[in-house]
Amino acid sequence: MHTIRLAVDVMGGDYGTRTIIAGIVEARSLTTWPFSVRLCGNEKTIREVLSLLQDETGFEIENCPDYIGQNDIAARSWKQKSGSPIVRAITLQAEGLVDATVSAGDTRVLLGAAIFILGRLPDVTRPALAAFVPTITGRPTLLLDVGANLNCRTEHLVTFGRLGFEYQKLFFDGYLPTVALLNIGKEPYKGTSAILESAELLNSQLSTFRGFVEGSQVLRGETDVIVCDGFTGNVLLKACESFFPLTMAVLGDDAKLGAQIREKMTILNPEHYGAAPLLGIAGTVLKAHGCSSSGAIARSIVRAVDTVRAGRG
Amino acid sequence: MHTIRLAVDVMGGDYGTRTIIAGIVEARSLTTWPFSVRLCGNEKTIREVLSLLQDETGFEIENCPDYIGQNDIAARSWKQKSGSPIVRAITLQAEGLVDATVSAGDTRVLLGAAIFILGRLPDVTRPALAAFVPTITGRPTLLLDVGANLNCRTEHLVTFGRLGFEYQKLFFDGYLPTVALLNIGKEPYKGTSAILESAELLNSQLSTFRGFVEGSQVLRGETDVIVCDGFTGNVLLKACESFFPLTMAVLGDDAKLGAQIREKMTILNPEHYGAAPLLGIAGTVLKAHGCSSSGAIARSIVRAVDTVRAGRG
Repeated sequence: MHTIRLAVDVMGGDYGTRTIIAGIVEARSLTTWPFSVRLCGNEKTIREVLSLLQDETGFEIENCPDYIGQNDIAARSWKQKSGSPIVRAITLQAEGLVDATVSAGDTRVLLGAAIFILGRLPDVTRPALAAFVPTITGRPTLLLDVGANLNCRTEHLVTFGRLGFEYQKLFFDGYLPTVALLNIGKEPYKGTSAILESAELLNSQLSTFRGFVEGSQVLRGETDVIVCDGFTGNVLLKACESFFPLTMAVLGDDAKLGAQIREKMTILNPEHYGAAPLLGIAGTVLKAHGCSSSGAIARSIVRAVDTVRAGRG
Repeated sequence: MHTIRLAVDVMGGDYGTRTIIAGIVEARSLTTWPFSVRLCGNEKTIREVLSLLQDETGFEIENCPDYIGQNDIAARSWKQKSGSPIVRAITLQAEGLVDATVSAGDTRVLLGAAIFILGRLPDVTRPALAAFVPTITGRPTLLLDVGANLNCRTEHLVTFGRLGFEYQKLFFDGYLPTVALLNIGKEPYKGTSAILESAELLNSQLSTFRGFVEGSQVLRGETDVIVCDGFTGNVLLKACESFFPLTMAVLGDDAKLGAQIREKMTILNPEHYGAAPLLGIAGTVLKAHGCSSSGAIARSIVRAVDTVRAGRG
């Protein structure tokens, strides 16, 4: 069992460095596979958190003096802010010092750094951000794109289908993942021309292509991969992720009822599904939600470890 | 109290003529306002259903010999199939014989007939299909467009904002409805150029414009109107509508728990919110879901009656 080496941006989440490091510690109880972590961020902040947590084993610190603010132009930040946590993490990966990167920071900065430092896979013009949508089957569906590419042409949608298929296949023991295109109806004349053309191409390229699915089917988990443009995917993902906390808000005021419901509905809890992989990049890069709790960070770490393992075959 | 005269396409739903006519009968118990209905469809089928229901009062029959099949080109059907239920209903409305039309049939045929027979409102290039999304506040949000316009430019989104505002205002006693734009983030640099431009224009045109909302906020019901393109709106609406039945599927197997949950979650039941209004048309036209139950049809009828009443001021 080779130790898997991760770089983690500990400055990027909404809840601060402490939540992210607590998540990494938590991840150790979720996987038996050994992993080490380079904590990328402000060294002083990191040392304070580690001394609070009383757990410094297995960590290395990569001090990052730069900070990317809201006023920085995200698409160029990877170039101008080489000392920022995201850019340092991706650079460590490009230098072969780590196997994967996890960040809860700005998606565009992460994507820009990944594309320009690690590079794209052959035949991929637009890498995609994918995400796991909780479903009532208990097995999440991989949805892509969820925000990296707002306007998509046929070639992009077809590439997303292929990337999603390949990623899910890593984890499916011999079974081929099924792929569908998100559309406004099942009839073969509904939808944009890009979607209709993509359906024809995917049908000829993937034996497990299942045609169209509508918004009402997403939570049913009928296919392993769903392809759409990044605007629709982002909106849909966030709406689906809001179902579990809203149900708890509506139903949870009665303590006994609340506990029963939480147990049954827990399959729809987005916290269980970890980070969103950037697909089409020459390397393993995962984007955790900005609002990730330590539990969500822990699952993101495990997802990174599992992805590197599966990729090694 | 002037009787409100409706034309209803009784051939268009997935569950057949009987469900639609049963819904009309059911609507009588949901409103005290008098209304009459012209049943547009196959006369023989209608007479069979009416004799089964043993209720023929208040109905007139508009025999429609034409049928629009899946192979007809929807955009032209309004012209070629003048004897189809949708086209007959809209024509009765254009002739001043009814005040509003309700159909659970093909959206594109209904929209085509409405645009070309009734016409558009001044300054509206693209009428929109709006729909009520259930929210946890118990007060639904009007979402538009939900499928009539898949690709939208700035001018269309701004028009949708204005149309949604005007429609909701009909029902709000003196209070001005709030309007938001659906986007992938709240930051003013996120989103497509059409969305960013629309935000600027809506901000200058509507005093109750509230900026951006994300997918996670839709079910929270924070604004009265949410504007988006028709592809995203269709997917989002269907996903949100799937939430109530899926929750019941996951939680409802325990009879006692199921009943408690149904009672609390009923505010998210899409059946309670009736049909989707076509906005920007010179007349009241409502589209019910193809899969409408009789209860959903009943609420669509009430929505049509209320819209005509409110429009008269």
